[in-house]
Amino acid sequence: VSGIAYSSRRFAFAAAHRYWVDAWSAVENEQFFGRLTVPHGHNYALEVTVRGPIDPQTGMVINLTELKSIVNGAVVERFDHADLNADPLFRGRVPTTENVATAVWGLLAAKLGPERLWQVRVWEDDTLYVDYRGEGA
Amino acid sequence: VSGIAYSSRRFAFAAAHRYWVDAWSAVENEQFFGRLTVPHGHNYALEVTVRGPIDPQTGMVINLTELKSIVNGAVVERFDHADLNADPLFRGRVPTTENVATAVWGLLAAKLGPERLWQVRVWEDDTLYVDYRGEGA
Amino acid sequence: VSGIAYSSRRFAFAAAHRYWVDAWSAVENEQFFGRLTVPHGHNYALEVTVRGPIDPQTGMVINLTELKSIVNGAVVERFDHADLNADPLFRGRVPTTENVATAVWGLLAAKLGPERLWQVRVWEDDTLYVDYRGEGA
Amino acid sequence: VSGIAYSSRRFAFAAAHRYWVDAWSAVENEQFFGRLTVPHGHNYALEVTVRGPIDPQTGMVINLTELKSIVNGAVVERFDHADLNADPLFRGRVPTTENVATAVWGLLAAKLGPERLWQVRVWEDDTLYVDYRGEGA
Amino acid sequence: VSGIAYSSRRFAFAAAHRYWVDAWSAVENEQFFGRLTVPHGHNYALEVTVRGPIDPQTGMVINLTELKSIVNGAVVERFDHADLNADPLFRGRVPTTENVATAVWGLLAAKLGPERLWQVRVWEDDTLYVDYRGEGA
Amino acid sequence: VSGIAYSSRRFAFAAAHRYWVDAWSAVENEQFFGRLTVPHGHNYALEVTVRGPIDPQTGMVINLTELKSIVNGAVVERFDHADLNADPLFRGRVPTTENVATAVWGLLAAKLGPERLWQVRVWEDDTLYVDYRGEGA
Repeated sequence: VSGIAYSSRRFAFAAAHRYWVDAWSAVENEQFFGRLTVPHGHNYALEVTVRGPIDPQTGMVINLTELKSIVNGAVVERFDHADLNADPLFRGRVPTTENVATAVWGLLAAKLGPERLWQVRVWEDDTLYVDYRGEGA
Repeated sequence: VSGIAYSSRRFAFAAAHRYWVDAWSAVENEQFFGRLTVPHGHNYALEVTVRGPIDPQTGMVINLTELKSIVNGAVVERFDHADLNADPLFRGRVPTTENVATAVWGLLAAKLGPERLWQVRVWEDDTLYVDYRGEGA
Repeated sequence: VSGIAYSSRRFAFAAAHRYWVDAWSAVENEQFFGRLTVPHGHNYALEVTVRGPIDPQTGMVINLTELKSIVNGAVVERFDHADLNADPLFRGRVPTTENVATAVWGLLAAKLGPERLWQVRVWEDDTLYVDYRGEGA
Repeated sequence: VSGIAYSSRRFAFAAAHRYWVDAWSAVENEQFFGRLTVPHGHNYALEVTVRGPIDPQTGMVINLTELKSIVNGAVVERFDHADLNADPLFRGRVPTTENVATAVWGLLAAKLGPERLWQVRVWEDDTLYVDYRGEGA
Repeated sequence: VSGIAYSSRRFAFAAAHRYWVDAWSAVENEQFFGRLTVPHGHNYALEVTVRGPIDPQTGMVINLTELKSIVNGAVVERFDHADLNADPLFRGRVPTTENVATAVWGLLAAKLGPERLWQVRVWEDDTLYVDYRGEGA
Repeated sequence: VSGIAYSSRRFAFAAAHRYWVDAWSAVENEQFFGRLTVPHGHNYALEVTVRGPIDPQTGMVINLTELKSIVNGAVVERFDHADLNADPLFRGRVPTTENVATAVWGLLAAKLGPERLWQVRVWEDDTLYVDYRGEGA
């Protein structure tokens, strides 16, 4: 074996969202979420980490062209220049960075296999990021 | 004199927007703007540059506490966690990075004076920025 | 359950420090620490990671307003624009990045609980960072 | 004990490389690697993480002067302004980011000891990085 | 008029190069250029600035889709994953950052017009950049 | 001529400082400068821009090895790991970013010549920078 490594690739998408719990009144939402109830948006960054043995011939854990194609097809094309609140994945779920991370995990684990997908990191801006590794699902 | 310098300070705000020319049909808008017609958002960065003599006693071109207070009050509190298309400044004007820059210039020149305000730089993301220096207004 | 995630938020503070072991002579200090014995300073960055279940209603591991308030109150207001060597936490302890990290851990574990606090990462500059997770305390 | 921490330092080197499997035909290489078969290059960043107890007197996991000297001597002077394909470490091995990471691990584990060396992270650019922790070697 | 602004967009390409003056001996080249004579490479960043009036209807100085298409077609596809020394533009010219900048200017001025093209900035890495504005050509 | 370009190189130094006007009382200083009166510090970044014709043979505006040697010798070795208030250049002058920029200009113009030195940019942190171009001296 040539070793087991963790390969990560960074993606970007720009999306709008607002925080709102349908079961709460407007007053409750504004008290809890403040300005987050107003539609605003972010340049999200997404780091996808795949874990596995390094192929002795190609020197790769995963073909990056394949990884880019999977993430762009399943995530970036869906969330880039989109309103997250309008996506069925966030029907009844507040589009927090945590929920974006678990949603991305779900979309990618179906394609990559949960044993290859190691971690999804979502940056909402350069001061806030959430890591999800499939725990507690 | 202790010299004339350019002092710049960086601010951030997260906002939603979409591109849409009211005078155009939906088809025309989609042909010209593509996915930009869908509500999405960005983490904007704003760099405000003030030019002037360095005060021989304080060593400052402008008191940064004063500058922060002016920019936060006039710009950041207005645009942060906001939908730019809902702001009267963008009524009938597409909220492009160019138009955000000239809007910020207008808000700040009124407070700082156009002779002190040297440049407004607006970053929509880390690949796109617009500079405006009051030319052609 | 909606999953267990790791939410991280980044903070900043600017502080002065110097390296000096009281039990050593000046010559020994200069031999071991070199220029680090001279008072200098850094723009520190601090990343605080909280681990826990995502609240099914709010979609959050921790309310970020609460986290910001705790970290600002316990750490940033204490260390920002301060001389670390003058802080009682560094009496008899060299304010290395390692010791800053464990000091921050102590301040935050008392507020957040050691079972929620997952990791403290302290960047001295963009080439040096230390992670502390409560091990060996 | 003062705690067990993870100290990381970032290094940089600029190198050229191309992807080519000697056992494959030119057509096969071009089909699999595309433009990566053409000599090109990168500004690599390297993050070396050392894990260990914090020395109660010096407040350090490892003396950074010592760490810098080891990494510069064993890695940076070898790979900076070099053609990776010409290095004996990559004879018969494609210089992918994965293989650069395991090669760096090998060079550093010999000097630092595998029980102190915790992780090697290699960034090929700011969208791609690989972590290696000595697994599966 | 809605104002005259400067719109800048950032691009990236990874290329190999070496410094070598054909008219000099190997000894002279090594004395002057040192390790730069060995093939190595960089992740270049390119910032292209276009100056002009903001279109009152679209709010743009230049359509970014058009700008991206021009720069990708004329520059990025040519220099990305390429060996600069093999490009006819650098026959008899050392591929310094300065010469890369003037070469990019030449390629883009032909497409954008020298009166719209305001500046080309080329970053060789994050510590070195060159600006060219068509002066002295 | 091969064109006239602007070559910039980025340097770093870590220094301590505090703001204090000797002619003011402690109360006046604290009212005006607030927490800036307490010794603290920063990771400064310095960008030095040289303007000139590109040498047709070497392809350079200035030999970077020469530029690095001049700036390291005149500025970085002086200010790195230093207390700016203890430097004779800041005797009776508050070590603001503005005054650091003009001080650096003075140190470098003596070595590079004011006709080659185009601009000095000093970043105190990643939200504040000052440009000085020799105006009003």
